[in-house]
Amino acid sequence: MSTRQPTRDDKFTFGLWTVGWQARDPFGDATRPALDPVESVHRLAELGAYGVTFHDDDLIPFGSDDAAREQHIKRFRAALEETGMVVPMATTNLFTHPVFKEGGLTNNDRDIRRYALRKVMRNMDLAAELGAHTYVLWGGREGAEVDTAKDLKAALDRYREGIDTLAQYSIDRGYGLRFALEPKPNEPRGDIFLPTIGHALGFISTLEHADMVGLNPEVGHEQMSNLNFTHGIAQALWQGKLFHIDLNGQHGPKFDQDLVFGHGDLLSAFATVDLLENGFPSGGPTYDGPRHFDYKPLRTEDIDGVWASAAANMRTYLLLKERAQAFRADPEVQEALTAARVAELARPTLGDGESYEDLLADRSAFEDFDAEVAGARGGGAVRLSQLAVEHLLGAR
Amino acid sequence: MSTRQPTRDDKFTFGLWTVGWQARDPFGDATRPALDPVESVHRLAELGAYGVTFHDDDLIPFGSDDAAREQHIKRFRAALEETGMVVPMATTNLFTHPVFKEGGLTNNDRDIRRYALRKVMRNMDLAAELGAHTYVLWGGREGAEVDTAKDLKAALDRYREGIDTLAQYSIDRGYGLRFALEPKPNEPRGDIFLPTIGHALGFISTLEHADMVGLNPEVGHEQMSNLNFTHGIAQALWQGKLFHIDLNGQHGPKFDQDLVFGHGDLLSAFATVDLLENGFPSGGPTYDGPRHFDYKPLRTEDIDGVWASAAANMRTYLLLKERAQAFRADPEVQEALTAARVAELARPTLGDGESYEDLLADRSAFEDFDAEVAGARGGGAVRLSQLAVEHLLGAR
Amino acid sequence: MSTRQPTRDDKFTFGLWTVGWQARDPFGDATRPALDPVESVHRLAELGAYGVTFHDDDLIPFGSDDAAREQHIKRFRAALEETGMVVPMATTNLFTHPVFKEGGLTNNDRDIRRYALRKVMRNMDLAAELGAHTYVLWGGREGAEVDTAKDLKAALDRYREGIDTLAQYSIDRGYGLRFALEPKPNEPRGDIFLPTIGHALGFISTLEHADMVGLNPEVGHEQMSNLNFTHGIAQALWQGKLFHIDLNGQHGPKFDQDLVFGHGDLLSAFATVDLLENGFPSGGPTYDGPRHFDYKPLRTEDIDGVWASAAANMRTYLLLKERAQAFRADPEVQEALTAARVAELARPTLGDGESYEDLLADRSAFEDFDAEVAGARGGGAVRLSQLAVEHLLGAR
Amino acid sequence: MSTRQPTRDDKFTFGLWTVGWQARDPFGDATRPALDPVESVHRLAELGAYGVTFHDDDLIPFGSDDAAREQHIKRFRAALEETGMVVPMATTNLFTHPVFKEGGLTNNDRDIRRYALRKVMRNMDLAAELGAHTYVLWGGREGAEVDTAKDLKAALDRYREGIDTLAQYSIDRGYGLRFALEPKPNEPRGDIFLPTIGHALGFISTLEHADMVGLNPEVGHEQMSNLNFTHGIAQALWQGKLFHIDLNGQHGPKFDQDLVFGHGDLLSAFATVDLLENGFPSGGPTYDGPRHFDYKPLRTEDIDGVWASAAANMRTYLLLKERAQAFRADPEVQEALTAARVAELARPTLGDGESYEDLLADRSAFEDFDAEVAGARGGGAVRLSQLAVEHLLGAR
Repeated sequence: MSTRQPTRDDKFTFGLWTVGWQARDPFGDATRPALDPVESVHRLAELGAYGVTFHDDDLIPFGSDDAAREQHIKRFRAALEETGMVVPMATTNLFTHPVFKEGGLTNNDRDIRRYALRKVMRNMDLAAELGAHTYVLWGGREGAEVDTAKDLKAALDRYREGIDTLAQYSIDRGYGLRFALEPKPNEPRGDIFLPTIGHALGFISTLEHADMVGLNPEVGHEQMSNLNFTHGIAQALWQGKLFHIDLNGQHGPKFDQDLVFGHGDLLSAFATVDLLENGFPSGGPTYDGPRHFDYKPLRTEDIDGVWASAAANMRTYLLLKERAQAFRADPEVQEALTAARVAELARPTLGDGESYEDLLADRSAFEDFDAEVAGARGGGAVRLSQLAVEHLLGAR
Repeated sequence: MSTRQPTRDDKFTFGLWTVGWQARDPFGDATRPALDPVESVHRLAELGAYGVTFHDDDLIPFGSDDAAREQHIKRFRAALEETGMVVPMATTNLFTHPVFKEGGLTNNDRDIRRYALRKVMRNMDLAAELGAHTYVLWGGREGAEVDTAKDLKAALDRYREGIDTLAQYSIDRGYGLRFALEPKPNEPRGDIFLPTIGHALGFISTLEHADMVGLNPEVGHEQMSNLNFTHGIAQALWQGKLFHIDLNGQHGPKFDQDLVFGHGDLLSAFATVDLLENGFPSGGPTYDGPRHFDYKPLRTEDIDGVWASAAANMRTYLLLKERAQAFRADPEVQEALTAARVAELARPTLGDGESYEDLLADRSAFEDFDAEVAGARGGGAVRLSQLAVEHLLGAR
Repeated sequence: MSTRQPTRDDKFTFGLWTVGWQARDPFGDATRPALDPVESVHRLAELGAYGVTFHDDDLIPFGSDDAAREQHIKRFRAALEETGMVVPMATTNLFTHPVFKEGGLTNNDRDIRRYALRKVMRNMDLAAELGAHTYVLWGGREGAEVDTAKDLKAALDRYREGIDTLAQYSIDRGYGLRFALEPKPNEPRGDIFLPTIGHALGFISTLEHADMVGLNPEVGHEQMSNLNFTHGIAQALWQGKLFHIDLNGQHGPKFDQDLVFGHGDLLSAFATVDLLENGFPSGGPTYDGPRHFDYKPLRTEDIDGVWASAAANMRTYLLLKERAQAFRADPEVQEALTAARVAELARPTLGDGESYEDLLADRSAFEDFDAEVAGARGGGAVRLSQLAVEHLLGAR
Repeated sequence: MSTRQPTRDDKFTFGLWTVGWQARDPFGDATRPALDPVESVHRLAELGAYGVTFHDDDLIPFGSDDAAREQHIKRFRAALEETGMVVPMATTNLFTHPVFKEGGLTNNDRDIRRYALRKVMRNMDLAAELGAHTYVLWGGREGAEVDTAKDLKAALDRYREGIDTLAQYSIDRGYGLRFALEPKPNEPRGDIFLPTIGHALGFISTLEHADMVGLNPEVGHEQMSNLNFTHGIAQALWQGKLFHIDLNGQHGPKFDQDLVFGHGDLLSAFATVDLLENGFPSGGPTYDGPRHFDYKPLRTEDIDGVWASAAANMRTYLLLKERAQAFRADPEVQEALTAARVAELARPTLGDGESYEDLLADRSAFEDFDAEVAGARGGGAVRLSQLAVEHLLGAR
């Protein structure tokens, strides 16, 4: 079916570090050779992707001198031009080098914090130059293993200071970047600061330029805490903070698997795509940005498996989109939503112009309310659940 | 030791529903008879508690008529007067009766939402009358099992509408109540809205009276998502939102155990008490409210076990307080904190008056920074971890 | 499609306690009235089920006198005869009454252990009389909350003694029953003995009548420990111990959800049905027993939702069966399995008649083996994963 | 206190790979230089350790030629002789090199399985030569990410074949080695075969030389599935299968943390040491082998932190031993155990010579048994729990 063939309009993007992962894990050496970013751009373009994203060190190896740096950028830019691929997002590697072992923006060592800020600013320059609109901050090393060995208040102060500084830099330079924080509960640190979508939303509300800072939630990161990803991004959307999204797969609370999207909790992936593509039942904020895959090809695979897995992400997304659209269009689903009074939740609890004094005066609301009768109504959720499963299975 | 004997100054409080839990669980009938709230007040006072808290239905059985209601309140008030116990917090039961099976403030049925608001307002009247300063909202039934069967945006809209309305009611009535949201990830619903401290912090930032709304985090609820409780309350404190606290014990992601405080993750409990009693290393916001135990005496226990468990909560807290004070006072701990540069994190990353332009001009921050040397510094966390363990064990 | 309509040949069975669950949960009262077992038998038969199963107390309320008991049995038997429904399995309730709060077969109190044995034996009499072949033992209360408050060796001794005694009883009475242990990690106890399929397999190997004792694994119980259910039943099958199975749904490590089968981890459900229906790729032991649903209709639902959920279990199973059969029959899947060398694993590592001495002498196995070349081979798993997802989605 | 100073009699052992871990993790490069095994032997001996253990590749880098191999072994042997350190256990690295990416003994590729067997046999020769009695098998790569891409029966067949072959090899060579399987649920594979203590116990019961094969359970590995480690080793002990033990720390279901022993769930560590040092309350099988630490010094630490963490493991163990001995010796604990009828569980449920027919004839066991009265007895667990906590805190 033609809709299953990815096109640029689908806005599928990939991190260079995804297909480029050499499959070194905590217990094993690399199983695949290094991949030239230029090749990745070409191959992903052929597969139907819309763009690529990168950490500074994905493109320009750590420690490269200026000449080498320029050469890497030049080749990359040429590949983008040849393929028409875009770079909607970029980010900084503040986690691989030992210098960041105790944190980047929240390292106890001030000189390392300063170095980290500089490293981010330098790559923001490049991000802006390459046309990125979103700058992701994953604070993978911002955290601790020992509760009593870290000043948790000072850590949040420094985190805020860092992001306020970077936001001001973007404003002053006219970069037009928006920042997207990427929460994760743990790994590589025992506990990472801002561990979930929620914690990041709370933190953002304290920032000087809160309007410029939103989220880049990742499926697997929320599921590592066994949280509902769709609920999480719904709250982010509702708060106007879903700036970017990382799609992948995970099997619950364990190490970060970064599976192909849909290859983890498939029913949850269906709900996520339904929300991204169809929005809330009652309308409201929607997500129009890239569908970004942040996954790792299985370590067992060779390079053919790498490209097969890249294609699998996009094809699965498109299949889920088909299923979700059919779900919403099904008259029986509409009927079941009505039976479950789903739309009634969009109606305010107080009437138009009604005050709580009016509510207090409304005897039908309390004194004459029959809780037994109201409590006996059926919720209608099981029927909707089964309709979703059957649509997902392509069985309707 | 005298410090291990609870006094009113320790501000230990208990929910009537804790010692009063009859031990009905999903697979078993009650193992203990009902407990008269008046007896609970007396026994808890004798054990050294400072106050009690309640859900409306703990004190006044659901469906009581006005005469019975007054009688229950009168007896309770007399018990408070006889014992000197206070009621610093109250809350509403929006979860036991079948009418709330699909939610209270976010129920799809508008009449149930209205009924829920009325039920809360009625108990706010009583809470204020009894001198409570904090009103807790645990939305145990606000959630869903089926992602595609709920309008997640509308749910958050209604949640906000409900809390905005209640806040206005408190203001207008001059009740002086502050609201404390109690997050929980799941149980009894498959997924509960505002599942963690973070999600609630994010949500609060959108409220009309955000200043009146904070958190009542519970140890076990965060640990059900395997999140670090001390990190969570640290962020709440940092955002000025730790309005109340629920102390208990839990063994990781499983059903809500509500064990005695310290009888779950003891090392984490130590860090929590250290933060509550000693504050952040660099100072800043502290918590001065009740130490509230929200636990359940094991179902295997009879009434003697109930009172033993109530005492155990307080005694364990006081022991941990002793240990935490000794930890902070230990010169070797101070020395280890210095070696780990913990205090350096409280120093801003940019100097006084320094702009990012100054940082960009500082070659020592980047161009001349030796990442290898900085990356080789030892973090000093293992020493602090062992010092904490040894203090906790009373071995120093 | 006709294959999606359940028939007796599908061997779908339900516990009386599933559709009959009144939806009392740890935080809420019952939302549904009691259901007459006779009605359940009729309704399930109409929906296409093959049989029902029961705990003694589901059929005969605890404490019934002999006359009442006979009357309950008589009515139930009549319903079975009228509908042609069978009772392939029965089990004992050793968890609801307070007497079992500290355990049944492993209770510290010897008189309670004796009572528990008698209660099981009494229901074995009925089970045999009703034609059951399998007797399930779920030790929901066999466990502990406090590690140092239980003699763990004695507990296992008593557990073994109990099951040895019951096995002998079945033999001597000529009941022909096989016992199926149902593992669960926790809930209602903090930790339950024999928490997983594995622990039960280990325990069984120590029994006097080990051949008569196998397993009744439940999807959700394994997933509460985030274990792979399909891997678990594969090991049970391999050890000849998959005597019965409990199908339902769960969303990872949290309270026991007992969702409709497939309404939790759908991809895992697909793999489970594939194994149950199609067996191992290389043949070997298969499961031919009832497909037993042990689930709970959502508490939000009324009685219509109860029957809708019962039907949903069967329909989802049949859809997954269709998808799994198509998966295995797809030539591209066969080709991908070959590319992944899946069948090669069925070939012994040592050749026919080859000893380890021969292996030691085979230089190609070690001295001349090129680990680099072998390590570069692609595993082919991502392609199989995507083929499974696409078959599951009905997209091939 | 002198008992807190480790001596050889404490039988503390360390893997060379623990202190030698260079702190490369999935998101970061090594933060510490390589450590010479000879230095590790000397330093650990100075700290009070009794022995060391190793994977073949820890001692002899993968791919070393015979001359280099002999040189490595010679230096190591000299260090052992100089220090008096022993090698009670050894194991094989079947996980680092890419050749094992899809498994060792259960790799789909038969030539890799053969190579894996040879690699194990070769190191068994060395283990025996160095005096080891236990040979550990951690099948870290024996597993899968895709359920339908692996023949699970064939995998278990091959696993059995491999271990049967190795057992025969040990017998024939007169090595006197016993094998200890080390279960782990996941990481590095998505799901590892034999994921828990239980699954390994079940598997062992099918082996040709089942008597030679037991377990090497690791604290953190069981806790990654949120299982109770003390319960797990209790069952292994009860089945005569606790051949070796890996002590470390973990914070629940997340990546494998390998923290210092006691720096995770401290209350559980107390129960574990209580069982190892004091045995079951009613006696029975005990563990007399090495107390082996399989942990990783935090990545934030330098070499001083490495040795501090090694010492911390031993000191924490000794402190817990002190606490556990005091707990058992406390008359109040003895009294509380009696009140909780803990010892009664060691008494058989059937009397001496009593048959189930006698039990059936005993009206006091059922007909005249008063379940209400028996159900009202208090369990006494909360008191024991608090006594354990207070002993652990050194507060009694």
